[in-house]
Amino acid sequence: MLRVDSLENGYDICQDTDLFCFGIDAVLLAHYCPLKAGDAVMDLGTGNGVIPLIMKGVARDAGIRAHFTGLEIQPASAELAKRSVAMNGLDADIDIEVGDIKEAAARFGAASFSLVTCNPPYMAGGAGLVNESFERMAARHEVLVTLDEVISQGAALLKERGRFGMIHRPHRLADIIVAMRAARCEVKRMRLVCPKAGKAPTMVLVEAVKGGRPYLTVEPPLIVYGEDGQYTEEVLRIYGKI
Amino acid sequence: MLRVDSLENGYDICQDTDLFCFGIDAVLLAHYCPLKAGDAVMDLGTGNGVIPLIMKGVARDAGIRAHFTGLEIQPASAELAKRSVAMNGLDADIDIEVGDIKEAAARFGAASFSLVTCNPPYMAGGAGLVNESFERMAARHEVLVTLDEVISQGAALLKERGRFGMIHRPHRLADIIVAMRAARCEVKRMRLVCPKAGKAPTMVLVEAVKGGRPYLTVEPPLIVYGEDGQYTEEVLRIYGKI
Repeated sequence: MLRVDSLENGYDICQDTDLFCFGIDAVLLAHYCPLKAGDAVMDLGTGNGVIPLIMKGVARDAGIRAHFTGLEIQPASAELAKRSVAMNGLDADIDIEVGDIKEAAARFGAASFSLVTCNPPYMAGGAGLVNESFERMAARHEVLVTLDEVISQGAALLKERGRFGMIHRPHRLADIIVAMRAARCEVKRMRLVCPKAGKAPTMVLVEAVKGGRPYLTVEPPLIVYGEDGQYTEEVLRIYGKI
Repeated sequence: MLRVDSLENGYDICQDTDLFCFGIDAVLLAHYCPLKAGDAVMDLGTGNGVIPLIMKGVARDAGIRAHFTGLEIQPASAELAKRSVAMNGLDADIDIEVGDIKEAAARFGAASFSLVTCNPPYMAGGAGLVNESFERMAARHEVLVTLDEVISQGAALLKERGRFGMIHRPHRLADIIVAMRAARCEVKRMRLVCPKAGKAPTMVLVEAVKGGRPYLTVEPPLIVYGEDGQYTEEVLRIYGKI
């Protein structure tokens, strides 16, 4: 079912509940990597474009000029993203391209972006498959692209000193760190995301720097829900609700 | 100054305040890797032997037969460790050996232990040097052995499926994960240690398995101090105080 939701930053976003609607992971990632003036940002596997739409709002509010590209392999999702971009009058700021992450560096050129973001499919290929549409499945499972492919393509797209932001499940953290280093991207900053204080993390945010030297800053865990079952103050602030 | 302290498990431990007294890191590591019946445990850089002394107490209380070896390059620290072992009547359970971690696999034989523990020097060689004795300095800085050397030697000492427990500063986590995987040890479990809720971690506990497949369980952060400035219940339990 097609619907239009409003992001907290004022932009509208088209979503199709038969495809894949964005979750808190996209919101957290969009706010994890600070934007810099003149950034050329590539969002790999952009889905309905939620990450560029949120980041464009951050850039607008901070008075930062930045350009965003969202790459999406699924035409139906890319179509939604394009509609959202047009609806918000952001055609000059956000390009949505249909294509395969595995061909991203060949298509867009090596060293052509200063920031790459990716909220990749979390599940290993074929694991935990249930009855769902191919579109939903591909957004959640590593069937069309593997983590190693995402990282090697993202790294190739980055200029020297460019940043690579990613959110993933904690059980892939070792794989991310190893693959990033193999691609000359050093994970410099990470943050566990825990549903509640005292609980194991369910997500991890990382920022790697191309050509960066090893030194990992592990930030305080981000707690999503307070004891009262409501979003914590920090999450409310990230969502722009306070 | 030489002094004898009592561990919570009932054993006494000789410490020399001119050398290096154990801290919470050793206590946390000693409790991080569950012992199994028949374990042959090697503690690399054992200092005054605190880790085997604590782990022997765990084995005793659980009725588990296990043998411990502590390797220490500094004769004065090793001497203290030997005294503690003798004082507690544990000569049959704990061997203290004077020697260099870099020669451990050659000396003790490859694949000769089922569990290796190490609380290595935290500081990169020469970094943050202050006026302190060589003994204290070498226990804290990577002057006598590097992290890579610790990991490659520890990995060589392990039998297939053997476990490798380590505590270190969070900023080395990426280096640990990469070096472990390069040595065919996969980090399977990790836990951040935060001084207080909401604070960045100051230590990280890891357990790797030789020949293990990639899948990292990230446990809930361990919080050391509560809002009241006292140890949390979990830390009190680890210390055996409750």
